[in-house]
Amino acid sequence: MDAMVDLYPSRQEPTPSILPRRDPVVYGGAVHAEGLLPETLDQYQRDGYLSFDSFLNRESLTAIAADMERLRNEAEPDDPAVVREPGGDVVRSIFEVHRRSALVARLIRDPRLLEPVRQILGGPVYVHQSRINFKTGFDGAPFYWHSDFETWHVEDGMPRMRAVSVQITLSENTPLNGPLMLVPGSHLHYVACVGETPEDHYKTSLRQQDYGVPDRTSLGLLVERAGRIASPTGPGGAMVLFDCNTLHGSNSNITPLPRTNLFIVFNSVENRLVAPFGGTRPRPDFIAAREVVPL
Amino acid sequence: MDAMVDLYPSRQEPTPSILPRRDPVVYGGAVHAEGLLPETLDQYQRDGYLSFDSFLNRESLTAIAADMERLRNEAEPDDPAVVREPGGDVVRSIFEVHRRSALVARLIRDPRLLEPVRQILGGPVYVHQSRINFKTGFDGAPFYWHSDFETWHVEDGMPRMRAVSVQITLSENTPLNGPLMLVPGSHLHYVACVGETPEDHYKTSLRQQDYGVPDRTSLGLLVERAGRIASPTGPGGAMVLFDCNTLHGSNSNITPLPRTNLFIVFNSVENRLVAPFGGTRPRPDFIAAREVVPL
Repeated sequence: MDAMVDLYPSRQEPTPSILPRRDPVVYGGAVHAEGLLPETLDQYQRDGYLSFDSFLNRESLTAIAADMERLRNEAEPDDPAVVREPGGDVVRSIFEVHRRSALVARLIRDPRLLEPVRQILGGPVYVHQSRINFKTGFDGAPFYWHSDFETWHVEDGMPRMRAVSVQITLSENTPLNGPLMLVPGSHLHYVACVGETPEDHYKTSLRQQDYGVPDRTSLGLLVERAGRIASPTGPGGAMVLFDCNTLHGSNSNITPLPRTNLFIVFNSVENRLVAPFGGTRPRPDFIAAREVVPL
Repeated sequence: MDAMVDLYPSRQEPTPSILPRRDPVVYGGAVHAEGLLPETLDQYQRDGYLSFDSFLNRESLTAIAADMERLRNEAEPDDPAVVREPGGDVVRSIFEVHRRSALVARLIRDPRLLEPVRQILGGPVYVHQSRINFKTGFDGAPFYWHSDFETWHVEDGMPRMRAVSVQITLSENTPLNGPLMLVPGSHLHYVACVGETPEDHYKTSLRQQDYGVPDRTSLGLLVERAGRIASPTGPGGAMVLFDCNTLHGSNSNITPLPRTNLFIVFNSVENRLVAPFGGTRPRPDFIAAREVVPL
C-alpha cells in the first residue's frame, strides 16, 4: 500500500488550528430492525453523540459490574493493559475487556448496540479498543478534553473518522462524580494540536495527557458555538454513543461515589489502521487492534 | 489567660476518629428585622448550611466582579496574600479582599448578610478571613474535602465552633465547573485527622492540602448518613452560609467557564484566636485575623 495522505495533520505545526472534518458522520447503509430512526441519526449527525437510559437491565448490569470487579481484583502488577491512577496503585483502567470477560464479549454483539453502530459506520465493524474505566471515589483524577480520533490518527494510524465510541455506565453517574462531558457539534471540526509525540508516549498518556491536547482558544470557541456542555447522568446501565472526533473529558471525582464506565470503540473494517501518522512506533494491540476481526 | 483545654484535638493521634461537636450550632440572640425565620434557623442547625439565590442584584454583582478582576490584574508577584494554582502562575485566591475593595467592605456590613450571621453566632462578630477564589476555566484544581474549623483550630488557635463562612458567587456555578459541595449534617461531628503539621504549612496548603485531611472512612460514613452531597448551583449573586465545621470541597474545573466565588468568614468576638492548638507559629494575619474589630 502506498503511503497515505494525511487528511488530519496534528502535532506538526507550532500553532494550533481548527480544520474541517473531511469525512461523513453518518455513513448510512442497510437498516436492521434494531437500527436507529432517521431523526435519531440526524441528531447524531448534528451533536456527535446519542444517549440512551436503561440500556442494560438490572440483572445484566449487576453481572457485568461484578465481572469488572473480578478483573480489577485479579489485575497483575506488571500487566501492561492495567493502568493505574497518577501517583498511586489504584487501578484506573483495564484494556481488552472484551477478551477478558465473556459477558462483555457477548455485550458487544448485542444487536441493540451493534446495529446502530453498523448503521452509523455503513457496514461491518470490529473492536478497535475496549476498556473499563474505574473512576474511584475520593481520588479519581480528571481526564482533560480530547478528541480520541486525534490520538488514534497520530499514534495508531487510524486514517479516517469512521469509528464510534460506546460508553456503558456500570455505576450511577451524577453531575458531581466526574461524569463524561461532551462538546456537542465538536465532531465536525478537527483541532490540530501542537507538540511532537515522544516514543512510548502511551505509557504516561493513559495516566495524564501531555500531547494531543486541544488548545484553549479552540476549545472555548467550540463550547461557545455549542452553547452548552452535554453530560448525560443517571443510574448505571445507560449508554452513550459518540463519534470518534467528539471532544470530551471529565472532571475529578472527590465524592465517595465511584464512577465505573465500560468503553468500547468500534471501527469500520474499511478504516483499518496503517502506520501512525505521527511517525512513531505503533502502540500495543491492547490499545489499538491492528488485526481486523469483523463482528 | 490560662492555657486553654483543647476540646477538638486533631493531628495528634496515629488513627483518625470522629468526635462529637461540643458547641451549639445556632447560638441565638436578639433578632433584627433582617434576621432569619425560626424554621430557617432549624434548617441551618440540621444541615450546617443555607443557600440563597439572587442575594446580589445584577448591578452589585457586576460591580463587585469587576473590582475582583481589578485585584487580580493588580496582583503583585511577591504578594504573600496572593495564592497561585499548583504548578503555575494563574491566580487562585487573594486574601483580605474586605481591606482591598471598598465594595466588599460595604458588602460585609450589609444587614441582609450580617444580621443572619449575628443571629446564628449570638452577638457581635468580626472578619476572621476574607478572600476571592478564582477557579479559572480549563485548569481549576480540586479542593479536597475539609472542615475549615479543623485547620483554624489547629493552625490558627480558634477555640470553639462559633464561626460562619459566607460564600457569594460572582459567576455562574454549574454542576460541572467545580461548584462548592457540602456534606449536610457533617458539622455535628468533628473528624480528628492524622499527621503532624509542619511549620509554615500554609505556604503550600493553600495550593494543595496535605494535612488536616479527613480520612475516607469518616467521609464515607458522613456522606452515607447525609444520603446526599449538597451543591448549590445557579447564576452568580447567590449566597451560601455554612458552619465552620461543615465538610466541604470542590472538584476540578476543566470547562471553559470560570467559577469565581467570594468567601468571607465571620467569627464571634467571644471566640477570638489563642495560640494554635497544633503548637506551630500562628499563620499570618491575612489568613487569620488576630485583631478583633467588631463590625
